[in-house]
Amino acid sequence: MTPHPVPETGAAVKAADRAHVFHSWSAQELIDPLAVAGAQGSYFWDYDGNRYLDFTSGLVYTNIGYQHPKVVAAIQEQAARMTTFAPAFAVEARSEAARLIAERTPGDLDRIFFTNGGADAVEHAVRMARLHTGRPKVLSAYRSYHGGTQQAVNLTGDPRRWPSDSGTAGVVHFWAPYLYRSRFYAETEEQECARALEHLETTIAFEGPATVAAIVLETIPGTAGIMVPPSGYLAGVRALCDTYGIVFVLDEVMAGFGRTGEWFAADLFDVVPDLMTFAKGVNSGYVPLGGVAISPAVAETFARRPYPGGLTYSGHPLACAAAVATIRAMDEEGVVAHAARLGAEVVGPALRELAGRHPSVGEVRGTGMFWAVELVRDRETREPLVPYNASGEAAAPTAAFAAAAKAHGVWPFVNMNRTHVVPPCNITEPELKEGLAALDAALTAADEYTV
Amino acid sequence: MTPHPVPETGAAVKAADRAHVFHSWSAQELIDPLAVAGAQGSYFWDYDGNRYLDFTSGLVYTNIGYQHPKVVAAIQEQAARMTTFAPAFAVEARSEAARLIAERTPGDLDRIFFTNGGADAVEHAVRMARLHTGRPKVLSAYRSYHGGTQQAVNLTGDPRRWPSDSGTAGVVHFWAPYLYRSRFYAETEEQECARALEHLETTIAFEGPATVAAIVLETIPGTAGIMVPPSGYLAGVRALCDTYGIVFVLDEVMAGFGRTGEWFAADLFDVVPDLMTFAKGVNSGYVPLGGVAISPAVAETFARRPYPGGLTYSGHPLACAAAVATIRAMDEEGVVAHAARLGAEVVGPALRELAGRHPSVGEVRGTGMFWAVELVRDRETREPLVPYNASGEAAAPTAAFAAAAKAHGVWPFVNMNRTHVVPPCNITEPELKEGLAALDAALTAADEYTV
Repeated sequence: MTPHPVPETGAAVKAADRAHVFHSWSAQELIDPLAVAGAQGSYFWDYDGNRYLDFTSGLVYTNIGYQHPKVVAAIQEQAARMTTFAPAFAVEARSEAARLIAERTPGDLDRIFFTNGGADAVEHAVRMARLHTGRPKVLSAYRSYHGGTQQAVNLTGDPRRWPSDSGTAGVVHFWAPYLYRSRFYAETEEQECARALEHLETTIAFEGPATVAAIVLETIPGTAGIMVPPSGYLAGVRALCDTYGIVFVLDEVMAGFGRTGEWFAADLFDVVPDLMTFAKGVNSGYVPLGGVAISPAVAETFARRPYPGGLTYSGHPLACAAAVATIRAMDEEGVVAHAARLGAEVVGPALRELAGRHPSVGEVRGTGMFWAVELVRDRETREPLVPYNASGEAAAPTAAFAAAAKAHGVWPFVNMNRTHVVPPCNITEPELKEGLAALDAALTAADEYTV
Repeated sequence: MTPHPVPETGAAVKAADRAHVFHSWSAQELIDPLAVAGAQGSYFWDYDGNRYLDFTSGLVYTNIGYQHPKVVAAIQEQAARMTTFAPAFAVEARSEAARLIAERTPGDLDRIFFTNGGADAVEHAVRMARLHTGRPKVLSAYRSYHGGTQQAVNLTGDPRRWPSDSGTAGVVHFWAPYLYRSRFYAETEEQECARALEHLETTIAFEGPATVAAIVLETIPGTAGIMVPPSGYLAGVRALCDTYGIVFVLDEVMAGFGRTGEWFAADLFDVVPDLMTFAKGVNSGYVPLGGVAISPAVAETFARRPYPGGLTYSGHPLACAAAVATIRAMDEEGVVAHAARLGAEVVGPALRELAGRHPSVGEVRGTGMFWAVELVRDRETREPLVPYNASGEAAAPTAAFAAAAKAHGVWPFVNMNRTHVVPPCNITEPELKEGLAALDAALTAADEYTV
C-alpha cells in the first residue's frame, strides 16, 4: 500500500459522497465525512497526507487490522474459485467456516446459522427463541446495543431505539450490573451482582416466567460502555434461564473473536448460552458476515419442522472464506493471547496511570483490547463530562477531547461521555503506546471541562 | 475454472455442512444439500461430475452469471487496495457505487443508503417512511416476499410470515392485481386493474388515510409468482399515494438491475416511487449488498435531524466495488437489452408454445429474464398442480417436475405450483434454448398429474 493519495481524487470522492451517499445514524447535512484514501494494519490516512492510528478498529470490528495479507489473499483466491453460491447448497468455504467457528464457540454451540451481520443475527436468535419456547417476550438490558433493524433496535437499550419504539411489543428492558453507576445502590461488586440478579429475577416474576422466551445480553456490553460484569453475574443469569425455561442469548457481535483476550467473552466467565450471536471480528468485517451459534436443544426444535427464516447470502462463500482465513491467521499469529497480554500488561496499567493524573477520568475498565474510559466533570459526584445523549454544544467537551486526539494522530472512539480504547487486537506494543500517549494529551483537553 | 472436482472433497464438504451449517427456511434433518464444486457463467457442477444449467440464478440474484471475470478482477483489486472501511467516512468505491446507482434509478431517487441485503433495505425503507410521515401503518400485498427479518417478514404475504406473526403491529395486507386468479372477479386486465385500485383505495379509507405511512409493493412480485401488473396499476397506486400523503415504496430487490429487461422494473411502467429497495442484481450477490434509493423529499426529513438507523457494513467497499464493476460490465456488454430481447424473442414464444402442448401449464407470464409458468391439475378450473404451501407427499407433482428437469441438466426454480424461468440475464441464446428444451421434458412429468 503506497500512501501517495491524490488530493483531487479525495475531492471527487467527497463530492460524490455528499451528493449520493446517505449515512448511518446521521443528520445528512450536519456531517462532514473524512475522505479516506487508504488503510494498513492499525493505521489509515486521508487524501491530504494525514495518517491516523485507529483506536476504533472501524466500529470495533477490524480485530486483525486493515489489509491483513493472509485474509486479502484468501478473498482473492475465493473470488477466483467461487465468489458466491446460494444458501441451500453445501459449499466448501461455508462448511469450513462453520466447522472452525463451531470448534471455538463455547460448550455445545455447534450449529451455525450465517447472516450478513450482527443485527440480523440478533433478529434470528430472537425468532429461534420465541419458536423454541412458544413464548412471546424478550428481556434485554438498558445500556446495550443489538443492531439497527426493527427487532434488534427495539432490544437495544440506548437512545437509538427511541425513534423506532412503535414496534417494541414483547421487549422488556431491565438493568444489568454497572457498579460505577449502580441502579441498585450497591457499594461492592458482590452486592451489585447479587442485587442485579435479584432485580432480574423479580422482573421475570412480574412479567410472568411462562411469557419470557429469551434473555438477550451482550456478554460485555460494547458501545454502551464496556461494563465487564461482576464474577458470577452471567452464571446467575444462566441459572435463572435454567430455572424458568428461558433461552439465554449472548450477543458477542462486538465482544467475540478475540476482542476480550479470549475467543469469546463467555469464556472469561465459563458460561455457555443457548444461542450466541456474532459478526464483526469473525472475519474482521472484510466481507459482511454474522451468525448465530445454536445449541443442540434449540437446533432440535428445527430438526423436523422448518426454521422460518433465511436470507439470500446466508453463508456467503466469499465472506466465509474470509472467516476461515481470519480464524487461521489469528491462530497462527497468536492474536487472542496477544490481545489478552497487551490488555493486562499495557492498556490496563497505562489507563490507571492516566486516571491518577487526569481529573476528567472517572473510571477505567476493560479486558483484552476492549477498554472504556469514563469521562466526568466531577470525580466526586461522577457527573458525566457531557449529559446523556448530548449533541451539538452540549457535547463540546467530548468534541474537544476527540479533536485533540486526532491532532495527536489517533482516531478515538467516543460515545456519550466515554472514550473506548479498542484498537486492532494485533496492534503492536509500540503502536499501542503511541496511541496511549496521544490519549494522555487528549485527556488534558477534557480536563479543561472539569469542575 | 477446471471442473475436475474430487469426490472425497465433496464428501467432506457435505459432512461438515450436515454437522455445522444451519440452513435457511429448512427442517434441518429433512434436507440433503447438494455439495457444489464450482460454477461458471450459467452453469454449476457437483463433485460427482454432474453439471447443471442454472435456471434460478441462485435465488434470482446472479444476473451476470457466475464468476464474471471483470467483477472477480474488481473484487481482487479492491481487496488489495481497501477491503473494508467504516461507514462514517467517504471512500472511493462507496461514492462511485452510489453515483452509478443514482444515475440509473428512476426519477429523482438520487440518495443511496447501503445495507447488507434486501431484508434490511426494506426494514430501513419502512422506518424512513414512518418517520417521514409520522404515521404508524404500512400496507403490503398478499403474494409478496420482502425479506426474513422481523419487519420485512411481517410485510411478506406468503406462508413464511406465519410463524413470526407476533410482530405484525402496523402491517395491513391487501390484494394486488393477478388476473389469472383474480380476487376481484375480473375478466379483463382493465377490469382487474380498476378493481385492484378500488380495493386498495377502500382499504386505505377503512384503515384511515392519516394512519398509513407507506404502501410497499414489489414492482413485479418475484418469488410470489412474477405477476406483471396491468398497465396503469402502479401509476394508480402512485396517484393514491399522492392523494393521501403516503410514501410509495417499490421493492426491486429481485426485479431490479436488469432482471426485467430494464434497469428497474419501475421503468417498464414509468412510475417513480419515493423509496426503492434493491439488493441481489446490484452486484449479482458477489458480495452481500443492498440498499434504499431515496427521494429528495424523504432525504430532506433527515437533513438536519439524524436518521435513526445504520449498520457497520453500510457501503462496504468490497461490496461497492463489486457493484461498480457489475454495473459497468452490464453497460459494456449490453446485458439489460440482451435480457429484454431474449425474453421477448425466445422465452415468451417458447413458453407459449409449451403451454399449447402441455396440459399442466395454466399460464405463462413475464418479461426479460423473469418468467413464471403456472402449473395446474386442470386448465379449466385452474386448480393448482399442488395445494397452497404444500410439502411432503402433497408436493409430489412439483417434486417430479423438478427431478425431471435436473435429470435433463437444468436446475429449476420451483415455488408452490410454479416454476420460474429466471436464468442469468447474460445467458446465451443457445444455453437458454437448451434449458427450455429440458423444461419441455420436465413438463411432460408434470402432465402426469393433470386430470
